[in-house]
Amino acid sequence: MAQHSEKAKAKLHSLNAALESGALTQVKRILNSGLAPVDVAHLIESSPPKARKLLWELVDKDLEGEVIQHLSEELQSHFLSDMSAEEVADLTADMDTDDVADMLQQLPERVTQEILESMDDQDRARLEAIMGYPEDSAGGLMNTDTITVRPDITLDVVLRYLRRHKTLPPMTDNLAVVNRQNEFIGILPVSKLLVSDPQQTVREVMTTDSRVIQATQHESEVAKVFERHDLVSAPVIDASGKLVGRITIDDVVDVIRDEGDHSLLSMAGLDDEEDTFAPALKSSRRRLVWLFINLLTAFTAATVIGLFKDTIEQIVALAVLMPIVASMGGIAGSQVLTLVIRGQALGHISNANINWLLRREVLIAGINGTLLALVISLITFLWFGDPYISLVIALAIVINITFAMLAGAVLPILMKAKGIDPALAGSVALTTISDVVGFMSFLGLATLIVL
Amino acid sequence: MAQHSEKAKAKLHSLNAALESGALTQVKRILNSGLAPVDVAHLIESSPPKARKLLWELVDKDLEGEVIQHLSEELQSHFLSDMSAEEVADLTADMDTDDVADMLQQLPERVTQEILESMDDQDRARLEAIMGYPEDSAGGLMNTDTITVRPDITLDVVLRYLRRHKTLPPMTDNLAVVNRQNEFIGILPVSKLLVSDPQQTVREVMTTDSRVIQATQHESEVAKVFERHDLVSAPVIDASGKLVGRITIDDVVDVIRDEGDHSLLSMAGLDDEEDTFAPALKSSRRRLVWLFINLLTAFTAATVIGLFKDTIEQIVALAVLMPIVASMGGIAGSQVLTLVIRGQALGHISNANINWLLRREVLIAGINGTLLALVISLITFLWFGDPYISLVIALAIVINITFAMLAGAVLPILMKAKGIDPALAGSVALTTISDVVGFMSFLGLATLIVL
Repeated sequence: MAQHSEKAKAKLHSLNAALESGALTQVKRILNSGLAPVDVAHLIESSPPKARKLLWELVDKDLEGEVIQHLSEELQSHFLSDMSAEEVADLTADMDTDDVADMLQQLPERVTQEILESMDDQDRARLEAIMGYPEDSAGGLMNTDTITVRPDITLDVVLRYLRRHKTLPPMTDNLAVVNRQNEFIGILPVSKLLVSDPQQTVREVMTTDSRVIQATQHESEVAKVFERHDLVSAPVIDASGKLVGRITIDDVVDVIRDEGDHSLLSMAGLDDEEDTFAPALKSSRRRLVWLFINLLTAFTAATVIGLFKDTIEQIVALAVLMPIVASMGGIAGSQVLTLVIRGQALGHISNANINWLLRREVLIAGINGTLLALVISLITFLWFGDPYISLVIALAIVINITFAMLAGAVLPILMKAKGIDPALAGSVALTTISDVVGFMSFLGLATLIVL
Repeated sequence: MAQHSEKAKAKLHSLNAALESGALTQVKRILNSGLAPVDVAHLIESSPPKARKLLWELVDKDLEGEVIQHLSEELQSHFLSDMSAEEVADLTADMDTDDVADMLQQLPERVTQEILESMDDQDRARLEAIMGYPEDSAGGLMNTDTITVRPDITLDVVLRYLRRHKTLPPMTDNLAVVNRQNEFIGILPVSKLLVSDPQQTVREVMTTDSRVIQATQHESEVAKVFERHDLVSAPVIDASGKLVGRITIDDVVDVIRDEGDHSLLSMAGLDDEEDTFAPALKSSRRRLVWLFINLLTAFTAATVIGLFKDTIEQIVALAVLMPIVASMGGIAGSQVLTLVIRGQALGHISNANINWLLRREVLIAGINGTLLALVISLITFLWFGDPYISLVIALAIVINITFAMLAGAVLPILMKAKGIDPALAGSVALTTISDVVGFMSFLGLATLIVL
C-alpha cells in the first residue's frame, strides 16, 4: 500500500540512528525483517564505504541474492570478490538469469568458471546461453524463462497448461509460439488468451507481426523498439530464427536510465560507474585523467595568449576583457553541443537534415552573436572609454560565437562518424576551440587595430 | 517481425527522396500506408519546420490521432493551434485519455473548453477527472480505463467477464479489486488469475500489499516506485481511497527519459522542450537568456582581473597563466556538481551522508589539487623561469580546486533546499565562484609575493 514508503522512511531513520549508536543487533533486525530488499540495497548505495561493508555483512544469507541484484555493478563485484564460488552460486540460485549473467561478467574469468562449475546443469546451460552474447546486446539482456506453446493446440489447452504452473515468470504479457524445432512463429498475447473463445487454436489467435528482437541487436536499439511500440516483453531469436529468450521492460528501463546517465556523466568526464560514495583515492584517480586532458587545453590557450604578450603589456585592458570573449564562445557552443548530442541519442539527426541544422545554427549565431557583441562593446566603452577596444571585442565576440556554435554542431557529428563518444570528447574539444579562437581573434585584432 | 525496422528505413529513404523531388502524391502514399504512425511522428520530428508542416498536412485525417500522440508537446500544440475544436475532438477520439489530457493542457483555456464541449459525456468526464490533477502528478499521468472486479466473485466469473470484452486495455497485468463504493481493496494479477483454481474467489487470490499510487504523488516519485518494484501498471487512488485510474509503464518510461533529458539540457541552460529543429528565431531567444546570465559572470570575473591591472602591467606572464587557474577549478568543480546532482536524482544524498561526502571531496581536492599544482608549477617554471610565479600558481591551483570542488558539492544541496533547480543554476554559480576565486587568489598572491 501507499503507506509503505512512509513506513520505509521511518524504518530508515531508526536504522540510521541505530547505526550511529552502534546498536548492531537492532540494525540487523531492521535490515532483515523491516525493509524490502530494494530498500536495503538503496541504503547500502547511500552509505560511505565502511558502513556499506558493515551493512552488507549484516544482511542474512538468504536475503543476499535479492539485495545484491539491486546494487550497482561496481558494488556487486566489490562484495562478490570477498565470497567463495559456492557462496556466490548459492546467492544467485533465486535470481533472474540475466542479472546473474551481468554479475558474473564483472568477475575474473577464473572465478566465473569456478562459480559456473558449482551450479546445477540447467542453471549453467541457461547462463552460458546468455553469456555467449555481449553484455550490451539483446542476448546479454534477455532472460531464458519464456513460456512457449505450439500453434496447433486450443486456447483451452493453453489455459490448462498454465494452471499447472505455480507462478508465471514476471511480466509474462505474452507466450511465445514455436514449432517443434523451437523456431519462433508468433506470440500469443495473454490479453487475447483471456478474451478469445477457448475452442480456438493458438494459430487462429496468435500475432505474427509483433516486434521480435535479434539476440545480437544493441541494447540501445532494443530500448528504442520497446519505447516506440510500448512493449512489456519481447521474444529474442538467434540468427537461425530459433527462440532463445525474452527481454522484459524492467531491464529496458535500466538501459534507458543508464543512457541518460551516460551523457550527463561523460560531459563532465566522469565514468558511467562513478559512484557518489566510492573511496576518495579511487575517485581521485579517475577524475585526474580528465583534469590532465583539460590541462592540455588550458596550456594551449595560455600559449595563444603568450603570443600576444607585447600587446597585453601595452594595453592591459585586453587582459581584463579576454576571458569574456573565450567564455561566451564556450557557453554558446556547449548549448549547441548538448542539443546535437541529445538529437543523436533520440535518432533525430541524419544526413538529410545536417545542412538545415548547420544553416540554422549559423543564423542563431549571427543573431545572438551580434546582440551580445553590441551589449559587450557598449559596456567595454563605458568601462575603458576606448572605441577601438570596443570595436575589437565586438568583432571577436561575433567571430568566436559563430566558430564555437558551428563546432558544437559539427564536432559530435564528426566524432560519431569516427566512433568517438561525443559526450566524452566533445566538451574538451569545444573548450579548446572556443579558447583558442577567442583569445586569437581578440588579441590578434587588437594588435592590428588598436596598436 | 525484426525486418520491420529495415523496411521502415528503406521506406524512410524513398520518402526523403520523394520529398526532395517534390513528388507529393508519392509522399502521401508512403506516409499513410507504408509507415507505422510512430515512424511518421519520428520523421516529422527529424524535419525542418517547413517540411514538418507539409508532412503533417499530408497525413490522413484518420491517422492524425495516432501520429500526434508520438510528437513532442511543442509540436502538438503547434499543429493543434491550426485546427478547429471539432477537428481536435475527432482526432482525440481514439487516443489514451492521459495523452489527450496532456495535449489539451498545452492549449489556451478557452480552446480546451471548446474542445471538451464538443466531446461526448463519458469522454469529457474522464478527461476532466485527469485534468483536475497537475500534469506532473500521478493523476495527470493516469488512464481511466481500469478493469475492476468485486472481491466476492469466483475467478471463473472473472474469466467469463473478461471474455465479454473484445480487447483488454493495453498493459493490463492486473485487475483492480474494489468494493461497492469503488474503494480500492487490492489487485488481482492476471498471472495469478491464470494459474489459480477457477473456483477460488477473487478475495482468496488477490494481493493487498501491492504498490498503490496516490493521485497527488509527483511523477518522479511514481517513476521510482515503478523502477524499484518492477511494475507494469499500478492502480491510482484519491485521498478518500477510491480508485480513480491506473498508471502504465509506457508513461513512466517517458517520465524517466524526460528526467535524464532535463539534467543534461538544464546544465547547458536549455529548455526541456528545446527542439533540435525549432525555427532559428525561437531558439535564439531562448538561448539568449542563458547567454546574458553568463555574461554577468564573465563581467564579474573581468572586474576581479581589473583590480590587479597594475600587477599585470608589471608581470605580463600573469595574464598568460591566469586562465589556467580559473579553468582547472571550473572543471574539477563541475565534476563534483554533476555527481551530486545525479546523486540527488537517484535519491542517494541525505543529511546522514552529507558530512562524509564533503570530507571525501576535500580529500580528493587535496590529492588532485596538489598533483596538478606540482605539474602546473613545473611547466610554469620551465616556461617563464621564475620560481615565485611558479609558487604562486601552485598555491592558487590548490586554493581554487578546493573551493570549486566544495562549491560543486554544497551548491546543489543548498539550492535543492531552497527549491532552486541545481541542474539549471548550479553550473553558472559554480563558474562564477571558480573564476572569482581563481583570478583573485592567483593575482592577489602574485601581488603579495612576486612584486
